[in-house]
Amino acid sequence: MMVGSEGTLGMITAVDVKLMPAVEARHPIVGFYATVEAGCEAIEAAMASGTVPSAIEYLDGATMAIAGGAFPVAVPDGTEIVIVGEADGSVREAAEGRELLAEALSDGALAVHAPEAASGVDALWRWREGVGLVVAGHLGGKLSEDVAVPVDRLADAIQGTLEIARRHGLEGCSWGHAGDGNLHSTFMVRRTASDDLGRAHRAIDELFGMAIGLGGTISGEHGVGIVKGGQLRRQWSPAAVDLHEGVKRLFDPSGVFNPGKKRP
Amino acid sequence: MMVGSEGTLGMITAVDVKLMPAVEARHPIVGFYATVEAGCEAIEAAMASGTVPSAIEYLDGATMAIAGGAFPVAVPDGTEIVIVGEADGSVREAAEGRELLAEALSDGALAVHAPEAASGVDALWRWREGVGLVVAGHLGGKLSEDVAVPVDRLADAIQGTLEIARRHGLEGCSWGHAGDGNLHSTFMVRRTASDDLGRAHRAIDELFGMAIGLGGTISGEHGVGIVKGGQLRRQWSPAAVDLHEGVKRLFDPSGVFNPGKKRP
Repeated sequence: MMVGSEGTLGMITAVDVKLMPAVEARHPIVGFYATVEAGCEAIEAAMASGTVPSAIEYLDGATMAIAGGAFPVAVPDGTEIVIVGEADGSVREAAEGRELLAEALSDGALAVHAPEAASGVDALWRWREGVGLVVAGHLGGKLSEDVAVPVDRLADAIQGTLEIARRHGLEGCSWGHAGDGNLHSTFMVRRTASDDLGRAHRAIDELFGMAIGLGGTISGEHGVGIVKGGQLRRQWSPAAVDLHEGVKRLFDPSGVFNPGKKRP
Repeated sequence: MMVGSEGTLGMITAVDVKLMPAVEARHPIVGFYATVEAGCEAIEAAMASGTVPSAIEYLDGATMAIAGGAFPVAVPDGTEIVIVGEADGSVREAAEGRELLAEALSDGALAVHAPEAASGVDALWRWREGVGLVVAGHLGGKLSEDVAVPVDRLADAIQGTLEIARRHGLEGCSWGHAGDGNLHSTFMVRRTASDDLGRAHRAIDELFGMAIGLGGTISGEHGVGIVKGGQLRRQWSPAAVDLHEGVKRLFDPSGVFNPGKKRP
């Protein structure tokens, strides 16, 4: 019950850790697709490939239009979504997983990029880690939120993010952890345009509604915290919110644990 | 929070399932060891082998003395514990895992048995599934309880089970899911001896105390239910038990969900 409570129910005073051997090898495979639907089919194929990928990431066409110029290899014309799968494990397990993932991601792809050398693998992940910064730099600022939807609704959520952006007169894009149905939906703002930020906040509010409407959640991996205060009531029934608050009162009657955070 | 609540906090009205591909192959590896310590070192070696075993089971020497005659191959003389690891996955992943596990389990072993044909694999698991019945048939009855300890205390718990049995004038043995530190500690009873069952109940009570003393829990995988009613108070502080009961009152003020179960 403490998992996900964001420090609001107690504090950790001691931890036992279980050490697992580090993986010997990791092999990313990148698929480029002409439609979001083809990319999302590849995600489901990767999940059913027979190996358990250590990562399935996606970046939509709008993200690639901004950040794709710095991608380690040339991005095929007409790319509307990029899927990055990764297989890891022992040297041989990772090699086996790589083949299964490559097969799954090749179906319906414009092209597949599978760096072999460590330098190519590092370049790919270094680029991926920089995507948020590049997108923020495009207009000078951005508002990003972390939502999640069932994996089979991911294509709807990717398209929905773009539609919300358009309705608010903003540039939008998304990327995220596709295997978990987790989107980082992003609305770009000009720091010199005083109303951009307000429109982005309204877009984010619509984004939460879209995620809930698709059977998803207002938070994927970033938690609720202060920023999403008040949003849990949109996702949960009043009875569920009452139970949530009741548990908080039970564990923390004096309100000393991370006060003010995770307000439903 | 519902996980582990044993139906006492609510009921499931709908379920979404995520389908994963069935594994293509599974390869069990059996190691036989002359000391419990050597077997427990092999367990830790298997966990650190670089593959994630789909199972790590153990059966102690007392169990093997009763059930080992029906084992699919001859059990080496002097076997005090048997470890069964299993690798699964795609054909090649499972083959790779098999090699890693075989290497890990060979160290310090009297012998290793690695059936290749499906008939040998099936015979092994069929035997394993019958162990409880064979042990029950040895004297006519048994009391078994499911406890768990940190994996690095498993050897102490295996020896402790035998010592508890001796103190109560009973035959004892144990087997279980070694990778989870999960023991099914067993005390055999004669159905014709009226005091055997009472002594077995007192032995089980001591067993719970031993598990808690080793930093473990009164329940591994079988839950608390009615049989372990009152035992949670031995494992948890009064404050933790109060919170546990408070959550139950909060979710189920009328006491309609699985009433009488999981009494702390």
